[in-house]
Amino acid sequence: MAIFSFLSPFYLAVLCVLIVIILQNMKKSEGKKEKGETKTESRPWVDEDLQDSTELLAEEDGTSPSGAHTEPWTFVVVEDPEVKHKIREIIEEEEEINYRKRMGDKWVNDLKRLKTNWVKEYLDTAPYLILIFKQVYGIISNTKKRTHYYNEISVSIACGILLAAIQNAGLVTVTTTPLNCGPRLRLLLERPVNEKLLMLLPVGYASKSATVPDLKRKQLEDIMVVV
Amino acid sequence: MAIFSFLSPFYLAVLCVLIVIILQNMKKSEGKKEKGETKTESRPWVDEDLQDSTELLAEEDGTSPSGAHTEPWTFVVVEDPEVKHKIREIIEEEEEINYRKRMGDKWVNDLKRLKTNWVKEYLDTAPYLILIFKQVYGIISNTKKRTHYYNEISVSIACGILLAAIQNAGLVTVTTTPLNCGPRLRLLLERPVNEKLLMLLPVGYASKSATVPDLKRKQLEDIMVVV
Repeated sequence: MAIFSFLSPFYLAVLCVLIVIILQNMKKSEGKKEKGETKTESRPWVDEDLQDSTELLAEEDGTSPSGAHTEPWTFVVVEDPEVKHKIREIIEEEEEINYRKRMGDKWVNDLKRLKTNWVKEYLDTAPYLILIFKQVYGIISNTKKRTHYYNEISVSIACGILLAAIQNAGLVTVTTTPLNCGPRLRLLLERPVNEKLLMLLPVGYASKSATVPDLKRKQLEDIMVVV
Repeated sequence: MAIFSFLSPFYLAVLCVLIVIILQNMKKSEGKKEKGETKTESRPWVDEDLQDSTELLAEEDGTSPSGAHTEPWTFVVVEDPEVKHKIREIIEEEEEINYRKRMGDKWVNDLKRLKTNWVKEYLDTAPYLILIFKQVYGIISNTKKRTHYYNEISVSIACGILLAAIQNAGLVTVTTTPLNCGPRLRLLLERPVNEKLLMLLPVGYASKSATVPDLKRKQLEDIMVVV
């Protein structure tokens, strides 16, 4: 089925790069805040960027192919420290249950080599959290729903392009999927019932002391076949 | 759950760009073929690139974060015209059934505005077809399976980065999901039972006569929320 025909990776790439630009300018405005400006004063920086973005977007419209038009995603960019901390509290609470009893030994053992646990300090320390929601269906009216074919694949593709854009912008992130936290995070962020949390990306610059785990990976010939 | 922790968008991006480089060099070698070289003679061009790729990959290893290590994907790049035609025959046969009876009126109507049907000429004319398979589980031994957590999301993210890479390389594609064709295509391409077709990307240069449908899309403020 070609339901994905004319999906627009380029438009998505542009959008994702714009999100990163916006993030970086928020960073600037945050810097200004530290110099004593109020939050509201620093806000216009962001709005200006959103304006520029929309123009750029419009400019690209003519050259980029058009989407399948479900576009079933919402990117929630969280910069407010209090909201970030509430998100951390929800996730640590649910993840502790995941690790201690809900998910079982197999899951816990499968995660061991990743050295993860339910303590997620980065949810406080990362300058921005991007929570990506998939819209499992569209709302046409109170009674009428719109089918969002392949909504999970579609939103995941958008995430892939966002990850590439974040990397290209010199920022770093880690793809996390807060398990069993979706409903509470949806309520906290006041997202509608048709939206489900797919992924959470903490975004910022790499800490000078950051290290990369030395894990081997598959060779190209193991993942690519030429016929 | 941080099962996605340390997933490596950069590594994927590098890999995807390499795939595109390889595609373009295949194009070159194909050109040589037309000048009378045999398929086998033109092959080394590709192998050389694969070699370079692996080196580049190894070079990047140190700087790029490491994957969650299920890496549950197989990219099958089809350049053989006969195989491409067999793929077309399978897809057109199944898609005609999808449109005529299998999927029903709602599905057919939802697709109408995309002007798609079951005739897929591009499967013959595109220089390359990339069939992306997700490995729904890993095979450790005849009796032991390895859970591939979030394999569909993971492979879709890889596809998103591949789409961006294809676009950046000046090539064009369209994301298609051949519905009910997976099992027959898996057999045709001799992929193992743990692999399921996720997506098919025809890749090439845009035809001079190519047009882009003039569809409107959501505004940035409709898909991004700042908290």
